[in-house]
Amino acid sequence: MKFNLKVIIRILGLLTFINGFFMLLCLPFSLYYGSQDFKAIIYPGFLSILAGLFTWILFNQKSTKKQELTKRDAYIVVTLCWVFMSATGSLPYVYSGVIPNFTDAFFETMSGYSTTGASVLNNIESIPKGILLWRSMTQWIGGMGIIVLAVAILPILGIGGMELFVAEAPGISPDKLKPRIKETAKRLWIIYVGLTVLETILLMGAGMSFYDAINHSFTTMSSGGFSTKQDSVAFYNSPLIEYIIILFMFIAGTNFTVTYFILKRNFQKVVENEEFKYYFLAIAFFTIMITYTVYKVTGHSMEQSFRDSMFQVVSIVTTTGFVTADYTLWSSFATVCFFILMFFGASAGSTAGGIKIVRHVVLLKNSLLELKRQMHPSAIIPVRLNKKGVSQETTYNIIAFIMIYIMIFAISSIIMAFIGVDFMTSIGAVATSLGNIGPGLGKVGPVNNFAEIPQIGKWLLSLLMLLGRLELFTVLILFSPYFWKRY
Amino acid sequence: MKFNLKVIIRILGLLTFINGFFMLLCLPFSLYYGSQDFKAIIYPGFLSILAGLFTWILFNQKSTKKQELTKRDAYIVVTLCWVFMSATGSLPYVYSGVIPNFTDAFFETMSGYSTTGASVLNNIESIPKGILLWRSMTQWIGGMGIIVLAVAILPILGIGGMELFVAEAPGISPDKLKPRIKETAKRLWIIYVGLTVLETILLMGAGMSFYDAINHSFTTMSSGGFSTKQDSVAFYNSPLIEYIIILFMFIAGTNFTVTYFILKRNFQKVVENEEFKYYFLAIAFFTIMITYTVYKVTGHSMEQSFRDSMFQVVSIVTTTGFVTADYTLWSSFATVCFFILMFFGASAGSTAGGIKIVRHVVLLKNSLLELKRQMHPSAIIPVRLNKKGVSQETTYNIIAFIMIYIMIFAISSIIMAFIGVDFMTSIGAVATSLGNIGPGLGKVGPVNNFAEIPQIGKWLLSLLMLLGRLELFTVLILFSPYFWKRY
Repeated sequence: MKFNLKVIIRILGLLTFINGFFMLLCLPFSLYYGSQDFKAIIYPGFLSILAGLFTWILFNQKSTKKQELTKRDAYIVVTLCWVFMSATGSLPYVYSGVIPNFTDAFFETMSGYSTTGASVLNNIESIPKGILLWRSMTQWIGGMGIIVLAVAILPILGIGGMELFVAEAPGISPDKLKPRIKETAKRLWIIYVGLTVLETILLMGAGMSFYDAINHSFTTMSSGGFSTKQDSVAFYNSPLIEYIIILFMFIAGTNFTVTYFILKRNFQKVVENEEFKYYFLAIAFFTIMITYTVYKVTGHSMEQSFRDSMFQVVSIVTTTGFVTADYTLWSSFATVCFFILMFFGASAGSTAGGIKIVRHVVLLKNSLLELKRQMHPSAIIPVRLNKKGVSQETTYNIIAFIMIYIMIFAISSIIMAFIGVDFMTSIGAVATSLGNIGPGLGKVGPVNNFAEIPQIGKWLLSLLMLLGRLELFTVLILFSPYFWKRY
Repeated sequence: MKFNLKVIIRILGLLTFINGFFMLLCLPFSLYYGSQDFKAIIYPGFLSILAGLFTWILFNQKSTKKQELTKRDAYIVVTLCWVFMSATGSLPYVYSGVIPNFTDAFFETMSGYSTTGASVLNNIESIPKGILLWRSMTQWIGGMGIIVLAVAILPILGIGGMELFVAEAPGISPDKLKPRIKETAKRLWIIYVGLTVLETILLMGAGMSFYDAINHSFTTMSSGGFSTKQDSVAFYNSPLIEYIIILFMFIAGTNFTVTYFILKRNFQKVVENEEFKYYFLAIAFFTIMITYTVYKVTGHSMEQSFRDSMFQVVSIVTTTGFVTADYTLWSSFATVCFFILMFFGASAGSTAGGIKIVRHVVLLKNSLLELKRQMHPSAIIPVRLNKKGVSQETTYNIIAFIMIYIMIFAISSIIMAFIGVDFMTSIGAVATSLGNIGPGLGKVGPVNNFAEIPQIGKWLLSLLMLLGRLELFTVLILFSPYFWKRY
């Protein structure tokens, strides 16, 4: 029953400090554009830095006591981090009056840190530039958090098969928690930052302003999807920009360890990675299918049909949520496809949310093997992934993950409908929040937003974003009696 | 690779004979009501009897060769039975001109034998009485088939955990296939026939004509849902009739071995049965929730709100599909609830289709235990059902069943949308067909029917009815290479 409370609080303090630092990074833009929001950035920024620093010092103990985090501490820390950051990160919205209501501000911030991209804001262009950059930055910070979480922390906790998916991450060794996090995080963050810079440059080359380019790079690489334009990426009406963003969404949805191996020119590891193969194939398949329907329905050129189709498919599969066309207007076929794609998710170990392709691969293989087991009841037939056998426990865990995901979807849809939201909007809002995507169906479709959802519904959706982002188990386990039982 | 082809063909012959016999049972009604359909009944009826008899005699071999059915034969026989019966059973529709199109006639017949209740017919009251009775009878025959299948055959094949759910069926012993089928089937069929007679008498007492009463009893006890009225049970506008049908739908959705033990006054076995408990609780919970919404929206009396709510909930959960009110008009909450209830299904070992409550119970328990396993990775923690541990293999099998069910739902919804059916209708039609229910959402909602679905869609839905009815694996395994491989 004992937690390393001091260490937990110190970590929260450190994160608050970092959060404040990032807030202040938005200040130059606020000042440059002469917008009225600099107070709303400078106060929460300095407050966070001071509070963080104070906490960090206050709980700094030079005792001889072991300060390692246990697994149980880790569950607490991870969940608290996201909730705490979302609460403090919403201060600029509230203070500036951009989102005066705390529920809405919390929703928007959770949507940021969870890299979902669902928004309550309208008339985006009228919002002060500093606040808008902070909004994009919450997603970028969330993305950084996810990388270290997915590659270094969740595998140790053995959550939803993560130990299997990223087992070959650089710097991973059966060692203690701390050195592993540091080593792995450093290497992958360099890639993350590097790709963000690269995308910014490319987008500027394609005609975006520096401000728009950096905002969109932040939210592409984090699979977030917040835009500085009301019409999202459709605003630019530029095929080049769209193709650049498609490419970087695809990269952001790729397992960062795969990207690492590509950069290291270790292509053997990339070819062997089954998830990467199916990730690519799934996008190709749905792009082609939907291109056909777009071409037929809209009468656009084949190139535009292909581009619109690919952009939306990649955006939903990678759980980014940028929009260049309203897919709900294309055809019921497209609507059904996108609804089901919301349950795909891109690669494990990427910044994407959702179930993840690799879990579907394990599930599909296991289901097909079940037919074989039916014919040979006594044989033990394990699932094989990347040419290695997957243990029964891990297979179990992965399948339980998917089932719990679907159960949460079903129960939450019922609750949303109960509070008066219509059928399509309910299932769309729940699927998109749980999958950390952004746009849904019905009244929260690609060209709408979440402002009209009742308050209680926004809290539920915020919880779903948190659950989805932290791979369900991390949060759920806190609500289980097994966690709190002395052992 | 060798099958006992002769035995398989003999069984099909026998079934054709029985089918013809049942067809002729409709003749007296046709003659009594003086309807123009007696030729359409007498010709296919005698044809079936003769063809069946001929086949039976031709393939009767007095050889010394062993004639036992193997497991592989059983898969083939069961699937072929349902397909073959649906093809021959559609003759009266085609011959009478009631459904001139073979696709439609096959759909209607498969909907009958699979006890689904989805219909392409309009203006039901104008259809000749003999044909209409045959329509109800296909469901009653399907129900008989399902009882023997669920209680005696599928458990031996080890499909989807069926061996677990009905392990305590009377007459079940680890013996050969044949004696077991005979013994079990006989006992449960007596109950089935007895309950059908009882319901007929009660419905007549409540004011129905003998003809209507027997039709509705056939389709209640089989969880089928075909009615002799265009407005289904709503036509009678009689609370008493509705309560009687609610009661018998509930009984039809109860494991027949539980009913057997109730009749034997062995209540210990009933109390111990977890599925029965959750079956009851699920119905109670959703009835109460939806009563509230009906009361608020329609302004009906509390009694009528309760009755309408309970009727629809029991009808969907038991996969019967009778209708006394259009639930899609109540509220989005009701729509979402009913859509999700389509994935429930009643008890294993009943005539109901769908996933079945017991599988959900195992899944739910396993998912919750996964949180415990997360905390104690080295411990082996099995699911417990009815106070007994469930083996890992069986748990696996049950979960694989549910996952394949959901995958088939997703893929089929995409296909339905691809051929031009709208979103709600696609997901509704697929869910209701796969679950053997009847009414869906959108254009195939409670007050509509399936006439407008494109031809190719009707074939897909027919396949889904077959898949759902035969617990997926029985059919799917025929398409797997493992089945056809020599061993």
